[in-house]
Amino acid sequence: MTLLEQTIQSISKTLNEDAFHAAKERLANQAKPAGSLGIMEDISARLAAIKGTIDVKLSNKRIVTCAGDHGVTEEGVSLFPSEVTPQMVYNFANNGASVNVIGKHAGAIVKAADLGVNHDFEPDLPIFHKKVRYGTANFTKEPAMTREEAVLSIEAGIEIVNELEAEAPVDLLGTGDMGIGNTTPSSAIIAAFSGIDVEKLTGRGTGIDDECLKNKIAVIKKGLALHKPDPADPIDVLSKVGGLEIGGLAGLVLGAAARGIPVICDGFISTAGALIACELAPAAKKYLFASHKSVEIGHMFMYERLGLDPLIDLRFRLGEGTGAAVCMELLDLSTRILADIKTFEEVGINDAQ
Amino acid sequence: MTLLEQTIQSISKTLNEDAFHAAKERLANQAKPAGSLGIMEDISARLAAIKGTIDVKLSNKRIVTCAGDHGVTEEGVSLFPSEVTPQMVYNFANNGASVNVIGKHAGAIVKAADLGVNHDFEPDLPIFHKKVRYGTANFTKEPAMTREEAVLSIEAGIEIVNELEAEAPVDLLGTGDMGIGNTTPSSAIIAAFSGIDVEKLTGRGTGIDDECLKNKIAVIKKGLALHKPDPADPIDVLSKVGGLEIGGLAGLVLGAAARGIPVICDGFISTAGALIACELAPAAKKYLFASHKSVEIGHMFMYERLGLDPLIDLRFRLGEGTGAAVCMELLDLSTRILADIKTFEEVGINDAQ
Repeated sequence: MTLLEQTIQSISKTLNEDAFHAAKERLANQAKPAGSLGIMEDISARLAAIKGTIDVKLSNKRIVTCAGDHGVTEEGVSLFPSEVTPQMVYNFANNGASVNVIGKHAGAIVKAADLGVNHDFEPDLPIFHKKVRYGTANFTKEPAMTREEAVLSIEAGIEIVNELEAEAPVDLLGTGDMGIGNTTPSSAIIAAFSGIDVEKLTGRGTGIDDECLKNKIAVIKKGLALHKPDPADPIDVLSKVGGLEIGGLAGLVLGAAARGIPVICDGFISTAGALIACELAPAAKKYLFASHKSVEIGHMFMYERLGLDPLIDLRFRLGEGTGAAVCMELLDLSTRILADIKTFEEVGINDAQ
Repeated sequence: MTLLEQTIQSISKTLNEDAFHAAKERLANQAKPAGSLGIMEDISARLAAIKGTIDVKLSNKRIVTCAGDHGVTEEGVSLFPSEVTPQMVYNFANNGASVNVIGKHAGAIVKAADLGVNHDFEPDLPIFHKKVRYGTANFTKEPAMTREEAVLSIEAGIEIVNELEAEAPVDLLGTGDMGIGNTTPSSAIIAAFSGIDVEKLTGRGTGIDDECLKNKIAVIKKGLALHKPDPADPIDVLSKVGGLEIGGLAGLVLGAAARGIPVICDGFISTAGALIACELAPAAKKYLFASHKSVEIGHMFMYERLGLDPLIDLRFRLGEGTGAAVCMELLDLSTRILADIKTFEEVGINDAQ
């Protein structure tokens, strides 16, 4: 059995029901109107069910930012040149990027991963070195990658989780992405799975203008028409119109789910990875939390397919794991809400009449 | 000149334009697509303008939870009995309530204030002792309080800010409320100012049923018809259909604005207080941040009138300062986004072509 098959098979289909019910009971008895802390209460109960305790401690928080390049940038789909991908990987390694700053605020350790950047990084650069190939092919001409490479990229994500866990048990994993041009494959992926019009799923990425957006839509349509990715075969979708970092992001979700680690996905690209993961292994959804609502218009269709609601909408459109990092603070808070807010009985207050 | 008049007069109508422009320039040059951290960027620039620096430090964060009782609870508008108000004040003082837990997570010190609870607290209880009277009158029969008491309640809030500042300069102030029955006066206040139908502004508070909601609407209409509060005279509105803690909440906003302290208001009741403050002194809006969108349906109309957008929507309907506390973490984060994310130049990356 391959690592991917093993991982999918080891994802538990059930969470801890006892912890879930204990959480619900405690929340209902806390000295506040029932349900008055809304979504935070729901999250805290799901985390309790994942971890098997109502006193969940999310101490070791890790964010992995998967990077890869995209041959389709030849078609002029992005405002930034591909050279920015490796430059940003160095920026992550030097702790100067947005995700480093937001991750630090959330108490999370951020580490980038090279899944397919078109650049040779020094072996001692503190990143996960998991290059599958030097960027994808231009999917308007040939498949983005081979089927084998698609599997390798997912397995690289799984390996990263295993390596993190070998260092210290991970309490909460956040995913993030970097790859100039990668909103294009992400729109293509949700289009392939959902069959929704490409126009409805394609946004401005880093900020392209009307003409460039029209071109981007045409490029995605061309790729889908040429390769006809099979929506029932997520590996086929990933290999034909996906990205290497998107495969890595799928692997992070599968690896986390297999080890019972709650995982919070970031914006449009990370959610494309989560979508690949959950199409392969629907049980992974139980461990998955949506972070923010991206400005990218296709994002909500991904969440709809995953059955998830984003926690916040701060009009982010950056990626890197920035939205996941912000929401890590909320997940952490939810655990305190459940464990630390006292019950009516504990404080000796009359309950509602 | 009274304390209230002095305070209103000393609110600066302009913020630091130089710091604002320096913030905007730095945000535009950071190594990320321009504007890609959305609302967090806007907030960080406003905080820079308030504080006069692009490296804002929100170290001393304080939350004040104003408590008061309401005579209108005689009319059966709430699910909980009035006795819960003092019980919850003890709970705040003992650090066991929701706002204590969430405030602690945000690194904020929480302290309750008695503006008008129908109970005698021990003088050494660690709260602000600012009782104006033992709860309001039932406004379906007489004005909630006298005009003089309304002014005293606002001035009590101002005094609290002054006392906090005497301890240590406050970097960020959060407001919160406790008072069984206080969604009723809050709906009455926004109805009085806006003239919008009471039905559209009245929600279920702590969770009342359909019949109870119908009664609550009738109660508010009766109070408004009886007293005809003058929307051009915020003190008239507060005294006739308001609450003592709502006056205190207005005073907190005015006191913070007068001292150049950014202030973040909580949910429906705190925003009613902020509304009174900003109707008295529109310049206070420059220092005011909206936290969350409450489940209470009248809340958005308050924000509309204040020209503010809530940061988050986690379906909270609790008050106490819980929403303000969650958003304090976001305001704090925004300062790090502005100060710590490096520019393209600082990290040597090509800017967009």
